[in-house]
This record gives sequence, C-alpha cells and structure tokens, in this order.
Amino acid sequence: MTLGSQEREAEFVTVEGLRDRVGDRVKVRGWLYNRRSSGRISFLLVRDGTGVVQVVASAKEVPEGVWEEITALGQESSLIVEGVVKEDARSPGGCELQMTDLQLVQAAEDYPLALKEHGVEFLLDHRHLWLRTPRQTSLLRLRDRLMRELEGFLRSDGFTRVDTPILTPNACEGTTSLFETDYFGEAAYLTQSGQLYSEATCVALGKVYCFSPAFRAEKSKTRRHLIEFWMLEPEMAYYTYEDNLHLQEQMVEHVVGEVLRHNSDDLEILERDIQGLEKVRAPFPRISYDDALELLEKAGLSLQWGDDFGAPHESEIVRHFDRPVFVERFPVQTKAFYMEPDPDRPEVALAADLLAPEGYGEIIGGSQRIDDYDLLLRRIREHNLPEEDFQWYLDLRRFGSVPHSGFGLGIERLLTWIAGLEHIRESVPFPRLLNRLRP
Amino acid sequence: MTLGSQEREAEFVTVEGLRDRVGDRVKVRGWLYNRRSSGRISFLLVRDGTGVVQVVASAKEVPEGVWEEITALGQESSLIVEGVVKEDARSPGGCELQMTDLQLVQAAEDYPLALKEHGVEFLLDHRHLWLRTPRQTSLLRLRDRLMRELEGFLRSDGFTRVDTPILTPNACEGTTSLFETDYFGEAAYLTQSGQLYSEATCVALGKVYCFSPAFRAEKSKTRRHLIEFWMLEPEMAYYTYEDNLHLQEQMVEHVVGEVLRHNSDDLEILERDIQGLEKVRAPFPRISYDDALELLEKAGLSLQWGDDFGAPHESEIVRHFDRPVFVERFPVQTKAFYMEPDPDRPEVALAADLLAPEGYGEIIGGSQRIDDYDLLLRRIREHNLPEEDFQWYLDLRRFGSVPHSGFGLGIERLLTWIAGLEHIRESVPFPRLLNRLRP
Repeated sequence: MTLGSQEREAEFVTVEGLRDRVGDRVKVRGWLYNRRSSGRISFLLVRDGTGVVQVVASAKEVPEGVWEEITALGQESSLIVEGVVKEDARSPGGCELQMTDLQLVQAAEDYPLALKEHGVEFLLDHRHLWLRTPRQTSLLRLRDRLMRELEGFLRSDGFTRVDTPILTPNACEGTTSLFETDYFGEAAYLTQSGQLYSEATCVALGKVYCFSPAFRAEKSKTRRHLIEFWMLEPEMAYYTYEDNLHLQEQMVEHVVGEVLRHNSDDLEILERDIQGLEKVRAPFPRISYDDALELLEKAGLSLQWGDDFGAPHESEIVRHFDRPVFVERFPVQTKAFYMEPDPDRPEVALAADLLAPEGYGEIIGGSQRIDDYDLLLRRIREHNLPEEDFQWYLDLRRFGSVPHSGFGLGIERLLTWIAGLEHIRESVPFPRLLNRLRP
Repeated sequence: MTLGSQEREAEFVTVEGLRDRVGDRVKVRGWLYNRRSSGRISFLLVRDGTGVVQVVASAKEVPEGVWEEITALGQESSLIVEGVVKEDARSPGGCELQMTDLQLVQAAEDYPLALKEHGVEFLLDHRHLWLRTPRQTSLLRLRDRLMRELEGFLRSDGFTRVDTPILTPNACEGTTSLFETDYFGEAAYLTQSGQLYSEATCVALGKVYCFSPAFRAEKSKTRRHLIEFWMLEPEMAYYTYEDNLHLQEQMVEHVVGEVLRHNSDDLEILERDIQGLEKVRAPFPRISYDDALELLEKAGLSLQWGDDFGAPHESEIVRHFDRPVFVERFPVQTKAFYMEPDPDRPEVALAADLLAPEGYGEIIGGSQRIDDYDLLLRRIREHNLPEEDFQWYLDLRRFGSVPHSGFGLGIERLLTWIAGLEHIRESVPFPRLLNRLRP
C-alpha cells in the first residue's frame, strides 16, 4: 500500500541531497544562517554542514503559530524545516525549499558572531562559533581534502602508515624550542618530527609515512608559524635524493589537481584565484642554493654563503617561477645533522626545500639521510647531541643500512597556500599560537 | 633498438611484484632475513617490506667472489639481488629467485635479534629492530588497514575529518592523570580526548571525526592500557543514541570485513583464529547495565549498582555472546559529566560501551551528549569543573543546540582484538608504557 505524498511522513534529506529530490516534500535539519523578510514572505538561509539552502516561508502557507516563530528566529537557532523542493536556477544548489512546517529545536538569542566584520582576536576567542561561517567550513573541507588525497596518493603508491610517538626522550633537531613534560619522574619532550622513527620503520616496510601533530615552542610571531601543527612525513628505503624530489612533485601535483576537481565551490567561497594552482604540473623547476644567492644579490638581498633564507628571500626567489620551486643543495651547516652530503661537493647537503608560489613559503623540506655509521656518529658529536640517546638510531646504520630519503610536509602550510590565506592561523580548526591556548 | 634479455639492465621489482614477472631477470632490493646452505647451494630469505622471497644461489652460477660473500652474509645485511624469477608453488608468493648476481649494500654483523626467543624487555629495548620481523610487520600492516578502512568508511558516509588540539587548557574527564607542560608561562595539558572540540565542529559540518593521539598519565600497569594511544572520535549533530549505536556496529562490521578480505596473510602469520571475526555482523547484541549486573551476580562476580566493570566482569559478560556486545545505560555517576540522561529513567545515561569478544575488553565508548544548557551547567558544577574554562562548551548549548552523539574508538584496543594479541604493547609501533619512553 502506498500513501499519497501529503500523508507520507517527509524524509530527512541533507542540503547537498536536495537537488535529487525536486518536487518531493522533505525535512532538513540545520541552523539558521540568515533571514530577511518581505512583507508576508520570509527567506531563511538554512545550513546543515553539507550546504546552504534558501527556505521560502509564506505567512498564509505555514501552520498557525509558525509565522510568529519565524519572525522571532535568532541567527544560529537550530531548526527542522519541512518543505517542498523547488527547482531554482539562481540558488547555489539549484533548488530552494518551499516551507510547509517548521520545528524549532533551540532558539538562539544574541548570537555573538553577527554577520558583520569582527576583529581577529574576537573571532579567535569565538573560534568554536567562527567555524560555522561559510569561509571557515570551506577551509575545513579543504583541509580534509588535503589529508585524504595525500594519504590516498601514498597508499596507492605502496606506502604503509606507521605512527611515531609524540612523547620522546630526545630532540630531533636540537634541544631548543621543545615542550617538556614529566613522564613518571623522567623528562619527556613533545615531538618536533617523527622522521628518526620513520627511518627505523622504513627498513621494516620499505615505504612508510607518519602523519602526526608536531610542536615547536618558539616565541616568534609570524604569519607562517604555529605552535602545534600536523606533519606528513614519508620515508623511503632505497630512495635516492632524485627519487625523493620526484615523489614530492608527483604528490603535490596530484593533491592540487584533486582540490581543483572536487573543491571548486570552496575555492570560490574563499575567492581564491586558481590560475596559479592550475599551473602546478610536475616536474617542478629547481634552483641551487648557490644560484639562489646570486639571484638574491641582484635583487639587493645579499646573503653570506651559509646564511639561511628568511621570508623576503623566499618571496624573491619564487617570483621568478610560475610553479612550486625546489631550492636545493644547501650548505651542510644550515641543515640538520642527519643529511647526506653531496658526494661531489661535501660542503652541501642532498637536501631540498619546496617553496610554494606567490610568496607562501616553504611547504616541504626533505633530504637523503646519512647511511654511513661513521659519518653519522661524527655528525652527532659535532652537534653535541646526547650519543647515548641516539644508539638506537645508529643501530639503523649498523644493521642493514641502505640509502634512504624522506621529507616533511606541513599540512597547514600547504593549506595556507592552496586556500590563499593571509595568515596560517585560519588553516587549523583550533590554532595554538603564542599566548593563545584557547578555546 | 631492443637488446637481448641478457644485455638489458634488469629492472627493480618488489617482492610483491615478482609473481607478475616469472621468467624475467629482475633485481630485488632488501635485507637478508635468514640463510641456510646445502653444500654448494645457498637459500637466502630476502625481505623488502612488501614480502619475503626465497633466493637460490648456486656456487657455480654466480660471478666469482659472490659465493664467498654469500657464505659470510650476516642477518639483516642489506643487499640487491639480481636473478631470474621461477615459478614455485611451495613458496609463499608462488615464486622464487634464481640468483645471477649479488650486490652487498651493507654487511650487518652480530645482529642483536637473532632468530630465537627473546625476553619482552629486550625486544622492547630493540623495538626499532624488532619491527622488522614478520609478526611485527604484519601488525603494522593491520594497523594501517584499520586506519585506512575506518577513515574510508566515515568519509564515504559524509564525515569530514576535523583535527582537534593536543595542547589544551582544561581536562575533559577530570584533572587527574594528565600530562602537564609549560605553555609560555601558562599550564597546558595533553589531551585525553578531542570530543568537546568535535562537539563544536559537528555543528559546523554535521558529521565530523577527529583522529589523534591521546594521553593518560596513569600509573597502572595492565595488558590493555597505553600511556599514549590513538583515538578515532566521530561526532554527529542530530544523531540520537540509537543512530549512534547503529553507526558503530556498521563501522565495526565493515572494518573487520575488510581486514578479512585484504589481510588474510597477516592474520595467518599472527596465527589468528578467524572464526570469531567471521561472525562479526551487525546488528550487535545489547545488554543493559542492570541485566549485566544480574548476569555477573550469577557468576559469583557481584557488584553494587553504580560500580564500574573491571576486566574480569567484561570477560564474563562477553562469554555469553558470539559477537561484540553493547553494554548500555550505565548509572550516571559511573560516566562522564556530558552524557544525556535517559528521559524515562534519569539515573542512567544514554551511554554504551562496545565490548570485543574473547575477553579483549572495551573498544568503543559512546553516548548521546547533553544538549540542554541548564542541565549541562549543573553537571559541570557537580563535577567541580572550572566553569570559566567551559564557557565556550556551554556556548554550544546557548546557540543552536541540537541532540547529538558520538563515540571514541581506541585503535590499539581494536587491533589488539582483531590481531588476537596477549598484550596491547605490540599494537603500536613505539609503545609508551609506565617506565618506558624509549626508543
């Protein structure tokens, strides 16, 4: 027995799913994003996490009492709207909802984030609410996309995800800027990188990656630094320096392509000019550290050989390229202790940073790792690292050492570039900044 | 111009890929897992992370000098083997390699983890090497499979991954057992759960999950606890208690099915009896806390109403079921402050734990969350939680509050059950235990 459409209980549908239900009477569960009235007709913008739909309510078509409820609705009130799906070419999803009934779930009053401009500290204080706005939900969706596509790319290339610990007894890249905690009477530190551990696990599984929060207790305040951030760190046994760069450019090309394919709506909401993103095709150009120094000199940004780049230097370098660019073969002293020296020129390391276009800075740092026991031990001593704590790491060169390479990609850096953000703080749901631990 | 197969440079192939190259001359890069000789023939077991292949070397068929090298090879030496792929039905991958040449990459001597029994503390001290053994690589692959399938299941059901912070200013479930660190002059704690944050983000996106390390500074030493572990925490707006349980059983059924489909080799290496796993089909049985108490009483394990279960109680309960079982509607006082009371019986919470079969204990804890502002505030006060720190959380009930539910799944608990492990320490690459922070 089938019932007529008026008698049948209306089904719950997501806003995203409305386009397939034109003509049906359905229910949408969501929140009131905005409302305007024109006499006896009210237009409600209702969002539910999958999209925003315009709901048209007419005083003479809704049950008694509902019209009064509608006119009193505060922003972000939660509600269940019942209505008939109408095709409407001007609407974002191609349809709108003609309201037949309304169930108010909770009436929100005096919502602090009214639809006007707010200062950034006020917004960050209300991050738990700010995340509901279209721009922020688009950023969350893009962030999810990046993680999904990066992991998908690696897994389909034969990588295994192997988690590395957050609590560690020693520092990977020096002992400054570490968060310390008491581990049952012993000092433990929050990890800055899972790389050393991944060097162990890649010998077990060939190609591995870790994907984990990392921490830098740095007192600096820049547009490109977070205290807590997420890093993807692939590590590959038997991969040379060249293999490593090749993997990076393939991966970045893939993820940018998938974003353009799946998230054009989000990029539009963010008003991102996608012309630059469309040019992201491997292979990427490369410039040596030495050539970069020359280029900087010509631009009036002279550095001594061995100096590290700052943001202005990176911006000047990328100005000369229309795609991400590898800066490679850095002086050994500017880089971490574990990097393999260039056999033809031991004063430079087989290391490259990938700089994003348009001045968004470094998104990847990678290198071939030292596989010779004696050289690694010498470097550990030169860097005054606690030799005892690195015995397990030296074991990897005692037993079955192989050429191997890897890199670290910062998710927030990548998102900042792809979304075209002024400041990295919007790239993470709950940013941890200098003097910001809340909410 | 094509060259004859003898002149052409042999291609690199993974052990996994050998089955497709029968008859070809190829190269495999890997490590020596084991070796035995029979006169002038040597059998090398070579592993490369994708599998193990038997390499047959005959003194009269390998180049001069290579035979001497072979006979001196130590376990875990890294090497590149060149040879012809031969079909061999008795071999694990269905083929073996007839060696034509060998390149020793690094000669390992006196490998500490010889192929014999070792004590568990010794193995944990050498975790970076222990991970290379077949049992441990199978566990790493299974762990990767669980993460991949869990995230895949949620994403194809419309969930967005939204990360939650590790460093937090307050505790979710009380202030004991927290790791503390100095955050630029302020106390910060390592998270025990991302749930409260996910309650905020599910209002933005409808269905979200976080997947993150979590920490418990507990001085207890059991077979089921880790200090640092990974939790998957979905949170769904407009989901009732019933919707929540339904999602959980669908997800667990899915992930167990995918493990059986893709990882039968790994389960075999672990000698896992899979009969129990094959029965994991939704819906799962349920037993109320009250009925569980009766059942325990009959078994001579009496508890007072309001007591929490220990491992012996859980084992007794699951003995009566052949699948995972939900224990539900716990006394409010045994559970966290944020759980919605049963409207028909306010002394119990709309909360359920999912217990794994065979005595592996709780793998999921979930509940509907309180959505009423006044009740939540009362509970925060009853639990003596710092009201000021929970203002943002209360905001979620001030502005657009909706019924919502969620749960937390411990990856290590899930793996311990699925792999049939005696102790949870093998379920994570680098376990953090009481008094174990290394390597």
